[in-house]
Amino acid sequence: MIDVDLIVEGKYVLTMVEGAKPIEDGAVAITAGKIVDVDSASVITKKFKPARKLGGHNKIVFPGLINTHTHAAMVYFRGLADDLPLKQWLEDHIWPAEGKWLSVEFIADAVELACLEMLLAGITIYNDMYFFEDEAAKVSKQMGMRAVLGAGVLDFPTSSAKDADGHIENAKRFIENWLGDELITPSIAPHAPYTCSPDTFKKVKAVAEYYDVPLHTHLAETESEITIVYNMYGSTPVKLLNSIGFLDKRVVAAHCVWVSDDEIDILADKKVGVSHCIESNLKLSSGIAPVVKMLERGVHVTLGTDSAASNNDLDIISEMAIAARLHKAMVKDPTVLNAEQTLTMATRYGAEALGLDKKIGTLEQSKAADLVIVDIKKPHLMPFYDVYSLIVYTMRSSDVESVIVNGELVVHNGHSTKKDENEILEKVLWWSDKIKHDSIYMKRKRT
Amino acid sequence: MIDVDLIVEGKYVLTMVEGAKPIEDGAVAITAGKIVDVDSASVITKKFKPARKLGGHNKIVFPGLINTHTHAAMVYFRGLADDLPLKQWLEDHIWPAEGKWLSVEFIADAVELACLEMLLAGITIYNDMYFFEDEAAKVSKQMGMRAVLGAGVLDFPTSSAKDADGHIENAKRFIENWLGDELITPSIAPHAPYTCSPDTFKKVKAVAEYYDVPLHTHLAETESEITIVYNMYGSTPVKLLNSIGFLDKRVVAAHCVWVSDDEIDILADKKVGVSHCIESNLKLSSGIAPVVKMLERGVHVTLGTDSAASNNDLDIISEMAIAARLHKAMVKDPTVLNAEQTLTMATRYGAEALGLDKKIGTLEQSKAADLVIVDIKKPHLMPFYDVYSLIVYTMRSSDVESVIVNGELVVHNGHSTKKDENEILEKVLWWSDKIKHDSIYMKRKRT
Repeated sequence: MIDVDLIVEGKYVLTMVEGAKPIEDGAVAITAGKIVDVDSASVITKKFKPARKLGGHNKIVFPGLINTHTHAAMVYFRGLADDLPLKQWLEDHIWPAEGKWLSVEFIADAVELACLEMLLAGITIYNDMYFFEDEAAKVSKQMGMRAVLGAGVLDFPTSSAKDADGHIENAKRFIENWLGDELITPSIAPHAPYTCSPDTFKKVKAVAEYYDVPLHTHLAETESEITIVYNMYGSTPVKLLNSIGFLDKRVVAAHCVWVSDDEIDILADKKVGVSHCIESNLKLSSGIAPVVKMLERGVHVTLGTDSAASNNDLDIISEMAIAARLHKAMVKDPTVLNAEQTLTMATRYGAEALGLDKKIGTLEQSKAADLVIVDIKKPHLMPFYDVYSLIVYTMRSSDVESVIVNGELVVHNGHSTKKDENEILEKVLWWSDKIKHDSIYMKRKRT
Repeated sequence: MIDVDLIVEGKYVLTMVEGAKPIEDGAVAITAGKIVDVDSASVITKKFKPARKLGGHNKIVFPGLINTHTHAAMVYFRGLADDLPLKQWLEDHIWPAEGKWLSVEFIADAVELACLEMLLAGITIYNDMYFFEDEAAKVSKQMGMRAVLGAGVLDFPTSSAKDADGHIENAKRFIENWLGDELITPSIAPHAPYTCSPDTFKKVKAVAEYYDVPLHTHLAETESEITIVYNMYGSTPVKLLNSIGFLDKRVVAAHCVWVSDDEIDILADKKVGVSHCIESNLKLSSGIAPVVKMLERGVHVTLGTDSAASNNDLDIISEMAIAARLHKAMVKDPTVLNAEQTLTMATRYGAEALGLDKKIGTLEQSKAADLVIVDIKKPHLMPFYDVYSLIVYTMRSSDVESVIVNGELVVHNGHSTKKDENEILEKVLWWSDKIKHDSIYMKRKRT
C-alpha cells in the first residue's frame, strides 16, 4: 500500500482523455498536488492508502472547468446596466463606472468575489484580461484558484497607464513578478484590433515571446468591429492580426463571432484558441459564432463567460448548456456539439488553448489534481442514462459539491474552505452601495 | 390588527401587475389561501397580525412561475437519448419506451418526481399533455401543486385508448372527475395537426366548450410538420386549425416555431396563448420561434419546458435566461425581451394563456397566494442593481428557497414539505434501473 494524500471516488469518473470512456465506480489518487493514478475504485483502494477520502457512490468526478475569457473584477458591475445597445452600455455605464471605481482596492475585493463565484461553480482556472493583475494574482492564490492573468494593453489612457508603452511596461513588471508560480500564469492581453494599433500588437507579441507567456485578445466580436477595423487598416481583424504575424498557438482569441470561412482556416492553421462566449454574445446581440464550422475545421473552440457585467454570471456550466443546445438549431442538426464534445470544450480544449495541456484539462497520472465533485442524488438530476448528458443538459452549477485545485480542497460542501464567505459578501455590499448611488447619479445627469 | 395566516416579507416584492414597480421592503398578507393585501412591509405589519412570518431582508418575492407546456411524466425518460435527430429519437427511443412502460403506476411515480423538480424550481403550476391524467391530478394535489392537465387525444392507439373517440371518452371522464377542483384544472389536449384529423379537432373543441375547459395542442413545431400537414390537407397547421374554428383564447399552442407573418396575425387575433419552449426547440434543432415579432403583434407568448426527455429539465428560470438572451441576437437588438417582460411571460402572460388570470399570475388582493421566495445573499447573486435583471439573467432555480401554493408552504428551505424526497428518489432508481436495462436491450436489437 502506497500512502497518498487523498482518494476521490465517484459513481463515474470522467478523465476527459481523448477516446477514454467514463470509469464506472472510479477513483483518483492524489499526492502533493498531483494525480498519482486514475482507475476503478477497487484497483485504487487496493494500491493506495489515503490520508483522506472524498466523493462516493452518489458523486461524479471530472476535471475542473476552464473559463477561457473573462474580466473577473467586473463582477462588481454585474447587472449595472442591461437590455441596452452595446455602445450605450459601454459609453454611458461601463466605461464611466470603470473610470470612477478602478483601483487596487476595488480589484482585490472584486476578484475575490469572482473567484468565489467561479470556484463554487466548478471553475478551477480562468483566463483574465484586465488591469492591476498583481492584485488579481494575489487574491486568486489566496482563494486557492488557478489563473492565467493577462495584463491589459490599450493605446489610450486607463486607470493603470497613459498609453500603450505604459501598459506594456506594466505588463512586463507583472510578468516578471509571477513567472514560475504554480497557480498563476502571467500573460499579456492587447485589448482588440480597434483599440490597439498593429504596432502595439507587434510589441506585445515580442514581449510574450521573450517571456514565453500566453496572449489574450478580443477578436471579431461585433459586426461593427469588422467595419471599423476595415476602415482603419483596409483589412478584417483576423487578417490584420495574421498579416503582422500575431496569430499563433500562444493566442486565445475571445468571441470570433464574425469570421469568414477563410478566416476560420487561418485560425485553424495558426492553432489559435477561440473562446466562445455565447451568453455574452447573445445578451449584447453581438451575434452567434460559427462554432460548428470552426470545430469541423479543427479550431480549438473553448468556452468563456466574458465578464459578469455582460453575462451576468461566471458560470461555465450554463455556457455549456446553452452552447450545446443552440448550435444544434443554428445548423439544423441535433447531433452536433454532443454532450461529450461540449464538456471537452470546457476542459481539455481549454487547457490546450491556454498552453497548459501538459498540466491540466484531463485526469491523468502526473497532471495537477484540479477536479470537481458533483452530488447526483437530487430530484432534477434523476434519473440519468448518460453521464455526459447529465453534466451538459441537466446539471447546474449549484450541484457542484467540492472542488480540488492543485490537490487542495478549496470548495467543500458548496463553500469556500479558504475565506469567510460572509466577509466577502459584506465587502460587496459596501462597494455596491457606493456604485449604485453613483450610477443613479449618472442616469440623472443624462436626463 | 387583523389576524392573517401568513405574512411574507421581501427586500423586493414583485407583484407583476401591469405597470407596477417593485415594492422595496414589501410584504404580502395571506389568509385561507388568498392574498389579503400587498404593500410596504411597514404598512402590512401595522394592519395585520400573522400566525406565521416568512421571508425577510435578504429575500425577494414574486408570483409562482408558470410552465405552459410539458409532459410531466416523461421526466423518467430524462436523457434517455440525446444528440439524435428527432425521428430517430422518437421512433427508436421515446415511443418504444412509452409503449413499454406507460401505466397508471409509472405515471403516478414519474409525475411525483416532476412535481418535486418543478416546485423546487419555483414553478407553481404546469400545463400538461399526456395520458392517465387522473393519476397526475392525484399526485399533483398530494405534492401541493397547481396543474392544468390535458388528457391526450390521438387518432391512433396508445396505452390508454385505441382511437380518437376512445381518447375523447377518457378525456370526458377525466374532466368530470376534476371540474371545480381548487388546484386541478382539467383540460383536453389533441396532440397535433399531423396526429389528429380536423374532425378530431372539431370533436375536441366541442367537448372543451361543453365543459368550459382549456385546450392544449402542439402547433408548427418543426419544418417537416408544415410539409406533412400541407401534403395531407393543402393547408399549414395554423391555417388548418383556424379554418375549422379551433383557434381561440381557450387554446395554448406549444412551440409555434414555423409561423408566417399572417399566421402570427391569426394567433394574435384569436388570442391564442403560445408556449415558447426554447430549450427543447434548440436541442432537437426544431428552430427558433419568432418571439419578438409575436410579442410585437400582441400574441401572448409564455414559457414552457416541454418534457424533460427533450430538454432535459423542468426549469422555467433557465428558459427565461435563454429566451431573454437569445432573441436579442436573433433580431440584433439588445433591448427586446428585457428582464421585466421576460418575467411577465413566465407569470402574468402564462396565467392569461391558461385562462386563469383572475386567479393567479400576479400578487394582488383576492388572488390565490402562489408565490416564490428567493434568498439573494449568495456570491453569484451579488451585487445587483436591478431586481428583474437579477431574476432573469443571474438567478438559478437552486436559489428558490420557499414556495407557497394556494397559501400553503409546499417548499421550505429548498425541500418539499409534503413528501419524503428520499422515497421519491428511491422510486426513480427502481424505475430507471428497469428502463436503463431495457434501453440497452433496444440499442442492441438495432445494431
